[in-house]
Amino acid sequence: MKLYTYFRSSAAYRVRIALNLKGVYYDAVPIHLLRNGGEQLSDAYRAVNPSMLVPALEDDGQVLGQSLAIVEYLDETQPQAPLLPSNPADRARVRALALTVAADTHPLGNLRVLKYLTGTLGVSEDVKLGWQQHWLRTGLAALEQLLVNDPRTGRYSHGDTPTLADCCLVPQVFGAQRFGVDMTPYPTIMRIYAACSELQAFQQAHPAQQPDAE
Amino acid sequence: MKLYTYFRSSAAYRVRIALNLKGVYYDAVPIHLLRNGGEQLSDAYRAVNPSMLVPALEDDGQVLGQSLAIVEYLDETQPQAPLLPSNPADRARVRALALTVAADTHPLGNLRVLKYLTGTLGVSEDVKLGWQQHWLRTGLAALEQLLVNDPRTGRYSHGDTPTLADCCLVPQVFGAQRFGVDMTPYPTIMRIYAACSELQAFQQAHPAQQPDAE
Repeated sequence: MKLYTYFRSSAAYRVRIALNLKGVYYDAVPIHLLRNGGEQLSDAYRAVNPSMLVPALEDDGQVLGQSLAIVEYLDETQPQAPLLPSNPADRARVRALALTVAADTHPLGNLRVLKYLTGTLGVSEDVKLGWQQHWLRTGLAALEQLLVNDPRTGRYSHGDTPTLADCCLVPQVFGAQRFGVDMTPYPTIMRIYAACSELQAFQQAHPAQQPDAE
Repeated sequence: MKLYTYFRSSAAYRVRIALNLKGVYYDAVPIHLLRNGGEQLSDAYRAVNPSMLVPALEDDGQVLGQSLAIVEYLDETQPQAPLLPSNPADRARVRALALTVAADTHPLGNLRVLKYLTGTLGVSEDVKLGWQQHWLRTGLAALEQLLVNDPRTGRYSHGDTPTLADCCLVPQVFGAQRFGVDMTPYPTIMRIYAACSELQAFQQAHPAQQPDAE
């Protein structure tokens, strides 16, 4: 398998964790989001992924986009270390936790959105940072509530083995800390983050461990 | 089943389509996003869904949030009229099409984001509309490319029966038209939209057909 990735991309980070949890070997193809005017916007990458976003996974000659769709694909094709529980209501819960990050939180702090804020809207760096922190706090608060109020939360987001939800939680915490969000109001998230960080699969997926890290 | 819904919510609209395609009877509980300071922010609704977003589905005493997680749950528990294909790579494609709408496009035009733009950032109505149209066009262009370049696209987004991808496509077109986006550059999307609009499941899920429509 071949993963088009950028070390600091939260969405690529999710897929790297899933690949590591599954024990799947892959070749990393770095796509630099800031160099050369953004390599994800190049004609070469557009031919790979018309959405011009990372990550993309190439397997068996097929290219798959969208981190959550990729993780579900891995879970369906690589049965070892399942990333979703077996019961439909529990699966729905894990997917909802993942989407709370991937749909409600992360898209608002995406690079292209920040560029629009400072470029087209002409906001200052301070206002941009305020925007980032506001949506990070909003998303983390929702995630904390979903975790703290549910007896199905265990050592990890759902039970005592890592799931798709943890693949999303950890990169989101990394992003929030990078942009200076005070994590004190999210003790359950931080407890789970600490538990995940003890696992090699998460350690090796960390942005600082990637071949394209700066 | 009980669906907490708002007639104009794109995410609730997706779930209504899926419920209709499955032929599942449900009770609609309207949550008005604009009245009473936003009923989704009330203590009563927060107790139902801590994310304070619509939709939420109540089934068997469990409350499920996140439209895509709800549709997957329906697909796993109601085998009639499957909303995902059987092959993993095809399933990944349908999920990626859905996420192109639900993660890359829709969250940027969500009510709370627009409120932040006009409130905290103090932008004009014109600039707000420009923001909405920009992200709608960006998302629709990506979706069009994913559809037009893939032989698996049929009468609907994937093959000749409606899928999760169509549950997302139709509400997004409705939203784009509502905010005055010129749809000429997206002929494949519009062809699929027209095909879906012939089906009763889509017609009955339309915002104008809801009990809380204004």
